[in-house]
Amino acid sequence: MADSPATTAAPAPDLSGWSCPLPLTDHPRVVMGHGGGGALSAELVGEIFLPAYGGERLAGLADSAAVTLGGARLAFSTDAFVVRPLFFPGGSIGDLAVNGTVNDLAMSGARPAYLSCGMILEEGVETALVGRVAEAIGAAARAAGVEIVTGDTKVVESGHGDGVYLHTSGIGLIPAGVDIRPGRARPGDAVLVSGEIGLHGVAIMSMREGLEFGVEVRSDCAPLGSLVETMLAVTPDLHVLRDPTRGGVGAALNEIASAAGVGVRLQERAVPVPPQVDNACAILGLDPLYVANEGKLLAFVPPEHADALLAAMRAHPLGTAAAIIGECVPDHPGMVVARTAFGGTRVVDMPLGEQLPRIC
Amino acid sequence: MADSPATTAAPAPDLSGWSCPLPLTDHPRVVMGHGGGGALSAELVGEIFLPAYGGERLAGLADSAAVTLGGARLAFSTDAFVVRPLFFPGGSIGDLAVNGTVNDLAMSGARPAYLSCGMILEEGVETALVGRVAEAIGAAARAAGVEIVTGDTKVVESGHGDGVYLHTSGIGLIPAGVDIRPGRARPGDAVLVSGEIGLHGVAIMSMREGLEFGVEVRSDCAPLGSLVETMLAVTPDLHVLRDPTRGGVGAALNEIASAAGVGVRLQERAVPVPPQVDNACAILGLDPLYVANEGKLLAFVPPEHADALLAAMRAHPLGTAAAIIGECVPDHPGMVVARTAFGGTRVVDMPLGEQLPRIC
Repeated sequence: MADSPATTAAPAPDLSGWSCPLPLTDHPRVVMGHGGGGALSAELVGEIFLPAYGGERLAGLADSAAVTLGGARLAFSTDAFVVRPLFFPGGSIGDLAVNGTVNDLAMSGARPAYLSCGMILEEGVETALVGRVAEAIGAAARAAGVEIVTGDTKVVESGHGDGVYLHTSGIGLIPAGVDIRPGRARPGDAVLVSGEIGLHGVAIMSMREGLEFGVEVRSDCAPLGSLVETMLAVTPDLHVLRDPTRGGVGAALNEIASAAGVGVRLQERAVPVPPQVDNACAILGLDPLYVANEGKLLAFVPPEHADALLAAMRAHPLGTAAAIIGECVPDHPGMVVARTAFGGTRVVDMPLGEQLPRIC
Repeated sequence: MADSPATTAAPAPDLSGWSCPLPLTDHPRVVMGHGGGGALSAELVGEIFLPAYGGERLAGLADSAAVTLGGARLAFSTDAFVVRPLFFPGGSIGDLAVNGTVNDLAMSGARPAYLSCGMILEEGVETALVGRVAEAIGAAARAAGVEIVTGDTKVVESGHGDGVYLHTSGIGLIPAGVDIRPGRARPGDAVLVSGEIGLHGVAIMSMREGLEFGVEVRSDCAPLGSLVETMLAVTPDLHVLRDPTRGGVGAALNEIASAAGVGVRLQERAVPVPPQVDNACAILGLDPLYVANEGKLLAFVPPEHADALLAAMRAHPLGTAAAIIGECVPDHPGMVVARTAFGGTRVVDMPLGEQLPRIC
């Protein structure tokens, strides 16, 4: 029904002296949070990128896209890396660039095979530093068992970069019978995490802000391909895998809940938060659920396989602290609800942006 | 044999007041030329990237790498785009990002299929501008017949970027029986170019420097997949294809001569240089052979197919001004020699860097 004009005009509101509070979701300019992997990032994708060039695959919003070429089912993924500082305890931008893309491929069950690696260098950066970054890339690629087959180098004027930015893309083969993606989460699925959370974000934070938390916190940056292979050997019927990087476990669970239209019930006590992350978060007023990881994965799996998977993960060097942290429920679709240590419940919202910019 | 100490010491040279001229090939810091696609770029690759993480495929230095996955022969390529300004006559950074990667794939004979597209945004850039870039990406992808299936967005602080940087990667299927790469150039091959050269570089230059050359010069930015398909229909036995982007025709021919260990003899009069490029280069003291193109290709083909290929190319909208511009010779391996309009000869060296930075 078309609006009919009101027969009696309401008195016009007095707007003098009133200023419109800028809605948080309406930014005329890009803010740091648009790169944080939270609600602002999702808005950029949903309102600008998908309408402009998105098809069904891009809309799937998985860590990597599944495509078929010449009869082969492939995972294809890309990432850029703008972390500061370039080297940090437990890793470097080179490790992140290799492992970030390797892990995105592994999250679709693919065996990562070939990577591209490009650099955007800032004029004036020391070539020796570029060399150190390249060495780190090489070592990480060898450790992950992938080959870097193509690349590109651009140089921008001083003041238009930050030393070294990297971008990597990767392709890998998805085994037959494997269909792992956010949309496949089902009520009843057990939710597992492969180990202690928050280490990467806290490592970067302590380095950047010069904070010390008693013990050195090292990034958990690691390639997850072999852990995923171990899990697929238990059952190829994994529903969802996700590496909770920017936005942490909180953002990743929200994305999955949203994509599959299911609820997630989290047992907060079951989430392995190491004491140094707990301490750092307490001091800084952060929530460990939103702190970035670079060598962990979340898995949504049919409940009948959960125990066997947990055992297999714990037997793998990168899964020794794996845990079942919750379940997928038919209630509150699209929403993540945590049962707190004190027996209450709280909604784990999608974060707006990252709590700390440029952590990857 | 170990060095034996000299029995008579030579008088020590007097070095007071002498300063070492910095060898051009020994840069402790990255300069703009390292991103120019010339000798400095090659040095970065050869001395830093290849030793650190290069295998046989990366060392092949083709526009894209050929890999096999699940029985499918794939081309895989990556590029970043840091052009300034973002929009220019005839195109934009979005067109470059799509066509650059599409063309790199096509240069191995592959049919470009899937692209990734990531952005490094500078804090404070207008979201409307990001939207315009995204629209350009979408339009270019549709025109090239490729699907953008995966992406990534990072935001860096103001003063650490330049509005929008893009990075794209792509994969495509290489048809059976096709083996196109720089190393396959053979003495006797005819060298063809698909049209007028230098338009992209001059378009960017005129826009950036506010120069006018009588008529507006528009970038030739275009996707070359369909032109390559037309050429493959004449013969699958194309030896080399290359799109002469950064460093222009001069750098591309040098790379091919070097990779294949052959000489190239260029007929300078046969190279189609449009008058507006000729004028601009005369004014600015540039050589059209080193000016960037974004919608042209060079082809090295067996001489018996040259005429049929030329006819097929001229019948294609992107090849109307195609020409045979030289031949591959057994003499002076690794070197490009041009016969000038006046009947003399000159060596067309590998340029050191780009004549103009950030043209793509």
